[in-house]
Amino acid sequence: MSTPEVRPFEDADWPGVWEIISEVITARETFPYDPAMEPAAARAMWVEQPPGLTVVASSGGAVLGTAKMGPNRGGPGAHVATASFMVASAARGRGVGGALSRFAVDWARRNGYAAMQFNAVVETNTVAVDLYRRLGFQIIGTVPRSFEHPAHGRVGLHLMHLEF
Amino acid sequence: MSTPEVRPFEDADWPGVWEIISEVITARETFPYDPAMEPAAARAMWVEQPPGLTVVASSGGAVLGTAKMGPNRGGPGAHVATASFMVASAARGRGVGGALSRFAVDWARRNGYAAMQFNAVVETNTVAVDLYRRLGFQIIGTVPRSFEHPAHGRVGLHLMHLEF
Repeated sequence: MSTPEVRPFEDADWPGVWEIISEVITARETFPYDPAMEPAAARAMWVEQPPGLTVVASSGGAVLGTAKMGPNRGGPGAHVATASFMVASAARGRGVGGALSRFAVDWARRNGYAAMQFNAVVETNTVAVDLYRRLGFQIIGTVPRSFEHPAHGRVGLHLMHLEF
Repeated sequence: MSTPEVRPFEDADWPGVWEIISEVITARETFPYDPAMEPAAARAMWVEQPPGLTVVASSGGAVLGTAKMGPNRGGPGAHVATASFMVASAARGRGVGGALSRFAVDWARRNGYAAMQFNAVVETNTVAVDLYRRLGFQIIGTVPRSFEHPAHGRVGLHLMHLEF
């Protein structure tokens, strides 16, 4: 498979993006989001307004993954970025998450952020944890038993951080 | 001064609550909120809908402080609560923050949450850090240089946690 293209989200991408969000939140394995979230609420949550950005990873017209990025907090905390990534289950293991996360880190650097942090990385999501480590992220701490995993019970959420 | 009463927020409290929020966000010392936030956005942010709750600490009709509390995350993360507290500068040192934080912890326990966490406690806000420690909270980790303090420069934000 060719390397997916990462580009800004457009309205026409929404059905493909919603399909991924719906799949991810229903699985309840990687995101602390309400699995009953309606499409309109999901769109308001996922599609960022400036200074944030939402992108898709696409290949041959198909949406394989999506990411959103922007300031993690407001005012005195707005110099630290955050980002979230989702990949369609059928497209996993093909470098889509890697392409999206590299894009987000580069975007944050280019836009003058001092660091990026991920607030809630499920500790059993080792594909994501390992990917972020390879990008240079470190685990600042882990909130124990803060994520109810359908197979593993209550597992920890890592706070991960990369200073530029 | 008598112990302040902590009770649910009512519409008539808004002018007093906004005065406190405005004072706190303009100072830029304790909250990573946009100091230019407008009252309508502040109200939407601060006044929680169920299952969350917003309260005020009042004494003799004056609003001395305010708190909001609710689930920290959605779906698989909704069993952990969070809360935020603001006290009017003229009312500090009188136990208002203590009354509000004890109320929030009791509220979370009563409502079946498994834990409470504070996502962004400014490390130079030692009054708050010490208060939370006395309530049993521990620092899970500190994101360095993630809060731009007007006097101290970029200081850390603690992630603090109390399991019930």
